[in-house]
Amino acid sequence: MSAAVAAPSALSGFASLDPLVRPRSVALIGASDEPARIGGRPIAYMKERGFAGAIYPVNPKRTTVQGLPAFASIADLPEAPDVAIIAVPSALAIPALEELGAKGCRAVICFTAGFAEMDEKGAVEQQRMTEVARRHGIRLLGPNCLGVFNDAIRFYGTFTASFEKGWPIPGRIGIASQSGAYGTHIFSAALDRGIGTQVCITTGNEAEVSLGDALGWMAQAPEVDVICAYAEGIRDRDQFLAALDLARRNRKPIVMMKVGRSQLGGAAAQSHTASIAGDDAVTQAVLDEFGVVRARTTEEMLDIAYAATRRIYPARNTLGVLTVSGGAGVLISDAAEAAGLPMPPMPEEAQARLRALIPFCAPRNPVDCTAQVTNDLKLISTFAESVAVDGGYASILSFWSQTAAGRSLGPKLHQEMRAVREAHPDRLWVMSMLAPNKVRDYEADGWLCFEDPSRAVVAIEAMGRFGAAFAKAEASSPEIPLPQVELPATTPSEAVAKSLLAGAGIPAVPEHAAPDSEAAVAAAESIGYPVVLKILSPDIIHKSEMGGVLLDIADAGQVRQGFATLLDRARHHAPAARIEGVLVAKQIKGAVEMALGVFRDPVFGPVAMVGLGGIFIEVLKDVAFRRCPFDTTEAERLIRSLRGFPLLDGARGRPKADVAALAGALSALSAFAVAAGPRLAGVDVNPMLVLPAGQGCYAADAVIELQGGSH
Amino acid sequence: MSAAVAAPSALSGFASLDPLVRPRSVALIGASDEPARIGGRPIAYMKERGFAGAIYPVNPKRTTVQGLPAFASIADLPEAPDVAIIAVPSALAIPALEELGAKGCRAVICFTAGFAEMDEKGAVEQQRMTEVARRHGIRLLGPNCLGVFNDAIRFYGTFTASFEKGWPIPGRIGIASQSGAYGTHIFSAALDRGIGTQVCITTGNEAEVSLGDALGWMAQAPEVDVICAYAEGIRDRDQFLAALDLARRNRKPIVMMKVGRSQLGGAAAQSHTASIAGDDAVTQAVLDEFGVVRARTTEEMLDIAYAATRRIYPARNTLGVLTVSGGAGVLISDAAEAAGLPMPPMPEEAQARLRALIPFCAPRNPVDCTAQVTNDLKLISTFAESVAVDGGYASILSFWSQTAAGRSLGPKLHQEMRAVREAHPDRLWVMSMLAPNKVRDYEADGWLCFEDPSRAVVAIEAMGRFGAAFAKAEASSPEIPLPQVELPATTPSEAVAKSLLAGAGIPAVPEHAAPDSEAAVAAAESIGYPVVLKILSPDIIHKSEMGGVLLDIADAGQVRQGFATLLDRARHHAPAARIEGVLVAKQIKGAVEMALGVFRDPVFGPVAMVGLGGIFIEVLKDVAFRRCPFDTTEAERLIRSLRGFPLLDGARGRPKADVAALAGALSALSAFAVAAGPRLAGVDVNPMLVLPAGQGCYAADAVIELQGGSH
Repeated sequence: MSAAVAAPSALSGFASLDPLVRPRSVALIGASDEPARIGGRPIAYMKERGFAGAIYPVNPKRTTVQGLPAFASIADLPEAPDVAIIAVPSALAIPALEELGAKGCRAVICFTAGFAEMDEKGAVEQQRMTEVARRHGIRLLGPNCLGVFNDAIRFYGTFTASFEKGWPIPGRIGIASQSGAYGTHIFSAALDRGIGTQVCITTGNEAEVSLGDALGWMAQAPEVDVICAYAEGIRDRDQFLAALDLARRNRKPIVMMKVGRSQLGGAAAQSHTASIAGDDAVTQAVLDEFGVVRARTTEEMLDIAYAATRRIYPARNTLGVLTVSGGAGVLISDAAEAAGLPMPPMPEEAQARLRALIPFCAPRNPVDCTAQVTNDLKLISTFAESVAVDGGYASILSFWSQTAAGRSLGPKLHQEMRAVREAHPDRLWVMSMLAPNKVRDYEADGWLCFEDPSRAVVAIEAMGRFGAAFAKAEASSPEIPLPQVELPATTPSEAVAKSLLAGAGIPAVPEHAAPDSEAAVAAAESIGYPVVLKILSPDIIHKSEMGGVLLDIADAGQVRQGFATLLDRARHHAPAARIEGVLVAKQIKGAVEMALGVFRDPVFGPVAMVGLGGIFIEVLKDVAFRRCPFDTTEAERLIRSLRGFPLLDGARGRPKADVAALAGALSALSAFAVAAGPRLAGVDVNPMLVLPAGQGCYAADAVIELQGGSH
Repeated sequence: MSAAVAAPSALSGFASLDPLVRPRSVALIGASDEPARIGGRPIAYMKERGFAGAIYPVNPKRTTVQGLPAFASIADLPEAPDVAIIAVPSALAIPALEELGAKGCRAVICFTAGFAEMDEKGAVEQQRMTEVARRHGIRLLGPNCLGVFNDAIRFYGTFTASFEKGWPIPGRIGIASQSGAYGTHIFSAALDRGIGTQVCITTGNEAEVSLGDALGWMAQAPEVDVICAYAEGIRDRDQFLAALDLARRNRKPIVMMKVGRSQLGGAAAQSHTASIAGDDAVTQAVLDEFGVVRARTTEEMLDIAYAATRRIYPARNTLGVLTVSGGAGVLISDAAEAAGLPMPPMPEEAQARLRALIPFCAPRNPVDCTAQVTNDLKLISTFAESVAVDGGYASILSFWSQTAAGRSLGPKLHQEMRAVREAHPDRLWVMSMLAPNKVRDYEADGWLCFEDPSRAVVAIEAMGRFGAAFAKAEASSPEIPLPQVELPATTPSEAVAKSLLAGAGIPAVPEHAAPDSEAAVAAAESIGYPVVLKILSPDIIHKSEMGGVLLDIADAGQVRQGFATLLDRARHHAPAARIEGVLVAKQIKGAVEMALGVFRDPVFGPVAMVGLGGIFIEVLKDVAFRRCPFDTTEAERLIRSLRGFPLLDGARGRPKADVAALAGALSALSAFAVAAGPRLAGVDVNPMLVLPAGQGCYAADAVIELQGGSH
């Protein structure tokens, strides 16, 4: 939304990967006559599978390579190839890239390793490679990557050995992976499960083309319906965000494995690649923002991708369950609650109608039709029809265990299930059964099949998250208005920080400096009683220790008396101090203490944080993050996601707190952070005191930190 | 362990199921000539599979049934069968049971439905059935159950239709399930995965034989190594606990699916069966106590059961990872951290040695040998051997993705892996690969094979939990000494409650009633300064409102002055009140507020609870439970399991709290609850004030609730 959305230039940027993934001609620099060698494999693969474009092997020592005429040099090529693959030793890679640029080639896949993944010297060389590519306007994949394949045109610009197990099968999955080994692992695991991958792009060291580019290309490519992504660290914010946004607008779900979630994993990720993994919570917040579903395991990724190939993404997902086993119904209910997938009950009258058909059925939802249904198979479709029509569920999970494989019941069940789905093709129909031999039949009818019902529930829930994100992308999102912010030259004092924030819509506790008694009375009356009086002196730091703070000041008389008392005490305790009068502040009572903050993520820029104060942050790490800026709806969603939210919502007999005011302040803080620009290093508003509903919230303390003079 | 451990009588009790599961002769009451009918299936199954014992069909209308001589009545049977199966209409079931008892039959499986699962009348009939069985000493399985099979002797006392998919395959799994449908679902899902189930017992309505009986039989039966259990509600505490204890002593792992975890699931569980599901947290505490691993999904249950068939249960589990993909290494690290499975690093010198072999390997753990290893296959075993010997890991997960299936590398890898496992057969060796055709080969060598490495990690972690529980069962557990408790006739006052608890080792804040000033001084000196003084009068309830509480009394002079002040105030504010003097109490400062409690679970009896006070209990539900009684080690484990534990452990700059004293009080409370007997309904100690380490903890308030005169 708002800020870093795909600009038209970004779109043409993604299409600029076309020659890399959809080339009409391919040159292979370092081509080998040996089909099993790295420089031989792409040619062998494309020959075997019938790539229709031109293949130009470049090898100074041979006249033919695998039966094709070879060229002695890049300069000798008959044309500038759409894409060139570099498979030469590392010392020769940059010269080859230069020659390709000179020849007019604009897309290069570099298999060659020995760059940033190796050592500091390699990193310097890689930087040089990036500069050469940029100078020539070359889209460069790699170095140290396993390449690309696009099975739609039989283009295999990759040296993966995974095709030994089998060629890609028809399907609409695209895989974008920073790791070549794991990218092909996903491809291979999908293949074993009968899920077809059409396009795979592995980005390796990302000297030029990033994961974001690969995702963005898939987001606009007709070859791909569903995107599986594997990431270790995000380096290119703009392309990444533009890609996620474009995929969402084009209704293409992304399911992502982002490793380095644990501390342990984080350490391993850094030793494995040169990536600086952003804080995992920030990554999670960004994925949530765009409706990217994060898979916890490869299996879960494939479950979700498989479910997504039906292209049914309910914006408001609900689950109806039809089961022949009460036990399974309970288990599915547990799984749905854990996944956050609602299972509303069937309407009462429909329940009564079903109960009349099978007296001991449990028709609430799960709808347990019991083994009785096997005595009268016509009842199956009556029950299924009722779940679809009366229940109106977006997703329907039907559990039949091994019954579906039975000699007698199996075929009849299949017939009934086919009919009910055909009558309601807009629903997500999911079968959980132990009948491996029936899976292809049901799938051909448009069903999804899962052996394990719990895995089915996780995949179904993900379809709803995609649907909600797609619906949100379609809704016009309001522009977040940014305030005018002028940061001071040096780190501001608390008072200046509060005033800057107040100007941007984050209210501070009202307070006024009063040089004399009557000014104090005027201030108190403008703020409203009760007030707090504090001695005001640049020389007195620890006010309370000298009795310099007076609470519960309730009227003008008490203000005058308090003013005198404070001046007396100051003169007595610190005779040399410069006394500027008193500070009159609104006295806040019965507030919930929250903490708001902003910090600058090295990848994603300003990120806002909200949490309940004290132990909630320090012990429980109960905080929520969101990339800035965002509106009040989003701010309220963050606040409500906190485990400690009940404390704002009337727990322990408290009045409900002013969540609307808090959400307003949080959204305003997010806009402030963007408006302040890159000189802003961070903001801490702690405590932010939230009064009961209608009474607002006030920053009691605020710190603004600036970057050390940079930018 | 202490209380409800398997007594010898319980052991012989479990063996009393032998005729039910391991019969030499079977009668079928309501036998059908039709092999597909419920009364026909057991005979058809046993004939086809060659059950060696006698089969006696009982059918008044036929002389033969499926080719076997039939008997007109139970009385006509030539002998009392070891087991009889009742498959007659519900009205005839109890008469049949009576006749079987009269005939001398001591084990009955009742398929017949229409009892407690149906309605109130059915429940009454079922109660009558229980009484008949008990009167005759019959072990009765069911009614409304799917029966039993024991493939070791080809006994199929079940009418499941799941054999249509295939007969049981060799294996050492036992399934005990309250649900027939779900029990056979587990059997069938295991079959599809090549995991063999030898025994399956489904308990249905549990009129007599309970899930605990079935588990206990398996715990001592040579047919079973690993137990899969499915439970909706536990009805029979004693048998259940004795079974879990026996299984643990016999080193037989139990992996259990206990549904009804969610509120939603809980509702479905009650509508599905007549079970009153105990509070899920209590069930979880009991399963934890005995090292039963709770599976979240059927798939997870089978993963764990499959892993357990290797019978390697490390008491101190650690994971070493050997991987050809750095990305997979990170993913596995994430999964291990999430599962709580430690992955200590390799020794530095071993890392250096490996780095010398493959310069860009990452040998810390995960040990990433990189694709380089494929250039020199001998290095595979060097790396694997180092992980086993230098790393010394109990479990080793080896990730090879589709490489393991490769034409060239596959066979060589298999050979090297076989050799390294043979050299270290005591380790749990686990392969994660995409090579379905190689799975049987690796398994034959003693490896476990998982496609998904994250699932492998979950299963490996479970083996360590089994191992730890088995080791704990072997260690002699100290008897928990029980205090002498005499509960009063009626609900005791706070003072009496505190004094009862103090007598049992749960200290209360020290306080003494003092009728006069000098007695107050003496009390204060015995308690130690500072003290709190409170007015003592049965007529003054709200002491603080009349200024009846004085804090920070620091010496004898202040006690005398305070005594006078309090009496003055009392006379002034409540002239008619009877004044008994003052209460002198130790002043507690800087304590962490905890809450301890005991409640009586309807199934498992007294259960203790501990949590941090205030929001931790009320908002976050951050509490831990344990069946009473337990020792201080266990008490400390509970306390440390709290999310808010850091507050006791020095978080936010506090001193560390006296966790040892708190654990002592919690353990003492658990012993008190048992000693008090069933009249005790509950105890609340809230707040329990925990001082810094060495200074103890003190109950500031205590409530003891008694059952309404029962027992």
